[in-house]
Amino acid sequence: MARTGSTLLVGAGLGALLSRLLGARGRHQEEERPGVLGRVPVIPVPGVPTVHASELTVSPSTSGAVMKYGFPSLANIKTRESYVTSYDPRTRTASWVIEKLNPASLTGPSDRKYCEFKEDDSVHVFHRATNTDYRGSGFDRGHLAAAANHKWSQKAMEDTFYLSNVAPQNPNLNQNTWNNLEKLCRSLTKRYLNVYVCTGPLYLPRQEGDGKLYVRYQVLGKNHVAVPTHFFKVLILEQADGRGVELRSYILPNEAIDDKVPLERFLVPIETIERASGLLFIPNIMRRTTSLQALK
Amino acid sequence: MARTGSTLLVGAGLGALLSRLLGARGRHQEEERPGVLGRVPVIPVPGVPTVHASELTVSPSTSGAVMKYGFPSLANIKTRESYVTSYDPRTRTASWVIEKLNPASLTGPSDRKYCEFKEDDSVHVFHRATNTDYRGSGFDRGHLAAAANHKWSQKAMEDTFYLSNVAPQNPNLNQNTWNNLEKLCRSLTKRYLNVYVCTGPLYLPRQEGDGKLYVRYQVLGKNHVAVPTHFFKVLILEQADGRGVELRSYILPNEAIDDKVPLERFLVPIETIERASGLLFIPNIMRRTTSLQALK
Repeated sequence: MARTGSTLLVGAGLGALLSRLLGARGRHQEEERPGVLGRVPVIPVPGVPTVHASELTVSPSTSGAVMKYGFPSLANIKTRESYVTSYDPRTRTASWVIEKLNPASLTGPSDRKYCEFKEDDSVHVFHRATNTDYRGSGFDRGHLAAAANHKWSQKAMEDTFYLSNVAPQNPNLNQNTWNNLEKLCRSLTKRYLNVYVCTGPLYLPRQEGDGKLYVRYQVLGKNHVAVPTHFFKVLILEQADGRGVELRSYILPNEAIDDKVPLERFLVPIETIERASGLLFIPNIMRRTTSLQALK
Repeated sequence: MARTGSTLLVGAGLGALLSRLLGARGRHQEEERPGVLGRVPVIPVPGVPTVHASELTVSPSTSGAVMKYGFPSLANIKTRESYVTSYDPRTRTASWVIEKLNPASLTGPSDRKYCEFKEDDSVHVFHRATNTDYRGSGFDRGHLAAAANHKWSQKAMEDTFYLSNVAPQNPNLNQNTWNNLEKLCRSLTKRYLNVYVCTGPLYLPRQEGDGKLYVRYQVLGKNHVAVPTHFFKVLILEQADGRGVELRSYILPNEAIDDKVPLERFLVPIETIERASGLLFIPNIMRRTTSLQALK
């Protein structure tokens, strides 16, 4: 029941998918996107016990804590120092990666210069991306869980350099708008008790000349590492007073984006990501809060 | 260790993927495909206990028995009367479906005319295919586990009509060459103790005009049901005398095929399917037999 109510309110249906995505990509629809703060519907769900703030303060290294709001899917789960992930052996990238950010996780002596991108030996060699696959491809090795989110431990930072936490990303996107979104996630730790970030690739269809919808994406190297058409980030923001949870869901196209375009332009209903990715977020989140506010 | 030895012998490397597929699709490579029976390498694996024929005789309705040779992946497993399957919520079709055929499963009073294609209610509505998605698409609702394999029980036959056991299939393929391959599976029950059949979709890349490799596939209806570029069938054939297991792995393109092209033309090394699908077969099979012969 919670599911039905919440998705009706949070989501905007499949029809919104393409229009939202087009909206996110085209300046001409700017007028359709009002200020973010004016559009925060509150979704009350009866019968779920309140989560107390005291339960929310946990060490950044505790995997269980990282997964407080549940598993979007249950395939090929890997638990690392800094994140939990579900690996997709067909695309050779993660389906999703979840990390938990707070001031403690962002602070420490870790240094990126000691980190190197590395194959994930826990993945069968048939389904594993290698550095060679990326070489000369024109794509960056884009972090899903960001390195700079895990300064609290050198091991935690190093774990973000597994190629299973990486997807081929447009270099301009990686170094500009995507980087800005990662910075936003970190800056939100000043206003929220904990910031849970779930990041993953998307392979979205688009209409071709024959009027039909097609998914089309490049694959890199001899291991055929899939180049996502888009990336998503779902931010689960715990209010400091323990009253509830706020949600922000973004989809960015895997292409150069003018970094003057405000990040709010890429907000989408969570249902858009749930439908396109094959993952589910809301049912798990609703087990943990009586109050979910979704920015969209 | 068994893994390494077996894949070296059974598989032919990634380089073989495209050439095999092209070979399967192009008549000009006919001379590269000698008679099937002349190319059966025997792969001995020491240290694995022999499976006795007595263990191999089980009721067709026992799910555990269906999965004797292991799970190719562990995501979203569903156990039905006639098959076990792993569902892919992103593509809205199965990743694989495994059934077990023998004379008992092929015999019975079940009638297809009482069966109707139906939504799989066990799949979340965001990730579920509907009959409406297929309507007017030009694609058949192609069974993965075939209805005619499960005459032993009306319920078993009906279970093959869940749309989670179905993928969009070229009608000519479905009604001709694919149908012939299904008939071959059934006819092999005369020569083998049990015939395990694993069927699934593939989304294979091809080179486009810019020299790069792209995966491209259509999606149907408002739920964006993925149209596979190819289908695979892996046949695990148990020798009647309990001496060993034979393997046949096929990839067919999801397009009209002249049904005079012999089915052997579509045999591929199992490694080709393992790499492209993100699944693994050989490690599980090798736990169950000391002798694996692969047709390729």
